[in-house]
Amino acid sequence: MIPEPRLVEVRKNVLKQNDVLARALRERFREAGVLAISLVSSPGSGKTAFLERTLTVLRARYRVAALVGDLATENDAARLARSQVPVKQIITGAVCHLEAAMVQNALDGWNLRDLDFLFIENVGNLVCPSSYDLGEDLRFVLLSVTEGEDKPLKYPTIFNSADVTIITKLDLAAVVEFDEVAAKRNIQSVRPGMQILKLSAKTGEGIPSFVEFLEKRRLRTQSTCAVGK
Amino acid sequence: MIPEPRLVEVRKNVLKQNDVLARALRERFREAGVLAISLVSSPGSGKTAFLERTLTVLRARYRVAALVGDLATENDAARLARSQVPVKQIITGAVCHLEAAMVQNALDGWNLRDLDFLFIENVGNLVCPSSYDLGEDLRFVLLSVTEGEDKPLKYPTIFNSADVTIITKLDLAAVVEFDEVAAKRNIQSVRPGMQILKLSAKTGEGIPSFVEFLEKRRLRTQSTCAVGK
Repeated sequence: MIPEPRLVEVRKNVLKQNDVLARALRERFREAGVLAISLVSSPGSGKTAFLERTLTVLRARYRVAALVGDLATENDAARLARSQVPVKQIITGAVCHLEAAMVQNALDGWNLRDLDFLFIENVGNLVCPSSYDLGEDLRFVLLSVTEGEDKPLKYPTIFNSADVTIITKLDLAAVVEFDEVAAKRNIQSVRPGMQILKLSAKTGEGIPSFVEFLEKRRLRTQSTCAVGK
Repeated sequence: MIPEPRLVEVRKNVLKQNDVLARALRERFREAGVLAISLVSSPGSGKTAFLERTLTVLRARYRVAALVGDLATENDAARLARSQVPVKQIITGAVCHLEAAMVQNALDGWNLRDLDFLFIENVGNLVCPSSYDLGEDLRFVLLSVTEGEDKPLKYPTIFNSADVTIITKLDLAAVVEFDEVAAKRNIQSVRPGMQILKLSAKTGEGIPSFVEFLEKRRLRTQSTCAVGK
């Protein structure tokens, strides 16, 4: 059955190259003192709405920027530009995920030392992005209440590749009869101990806790770096 | 930038092999008089709920079966089994789409002449499945009202690879303020003239028209075959 062994072998080389680049990126982020955060999810689970709200809140106190990946359009960059932070769109063409090289190229011309937080929004896909390290410090997987509680069981690899699950579109939970207990059980069965946050980009519920989470994580990363020096 | 030329070349061979198999499958479906229908969409756009409802309605009058693709679980097959039609799960592992070889293997032991309709539910993904012909007569792309009206613009290839768009979760259209006019405009801009159906698997709205559409299409395919003989 496909994939053929030769394809697997070529893939491994691609992944290895990606890992080398991702490691270098991670080093750059640490040295510059920027916390790099990536977002992965299905198409339509609310990554961009969530990011727009987060950027708008964060920019009052921090220096923030975002890279957004998409196959074909610059719509997300246009939406995020409303938050008035620097945004760059990465157009991937037929490629169903971001790669470290794309992130590296997109950072051209930006001085990372001018940033506190860098957000990287991946292409909407619950499969492909899981194998590609982008050098991020934190990877969030978003799960909207409208998608169904079974997604962690059906796409375990992406949940395993992420650090935190964010349950989105909380304002719709009642109308779609979202079973939060089942969703959390499924997340924990795939990735025991995984931290879970929940919020609504529409109403703003959960956004302050999320921002607080990011602030703490940034401080922790910085103190770890200082100790390491 | 990745992908490398060598990867592209290997990919082309994989796709070519897939096309040969898909052509043979299409021939088998035609000869057996079965209408093969595949479903593609994001994870969580309601493929399985929609399919369960459709199978339940169709089985009163037709001989129906389904293949369902997933990375890791047999949950969908278990859900669809409630409709009391034959169902087989295809577990793809890390592969983000179905391939013709997987469909061919899964059909082992089934006599296609015993079927009027065969449904093939692809892995939830708006990118990978677009390049893989499964030998189906019709490909439906599902777009749920909760995903946002911009998905056709952001994932044009999959909309181009499909024959019909089905707007799902219509019962949630008001609460998520779904802009049907914008969604249809976006579909038409990617694929002018594309037929669009809309329904709710929850309330059943639109299911009778969908079934009627399938019946007509099946008759048309059969008469085309008869003329061709």
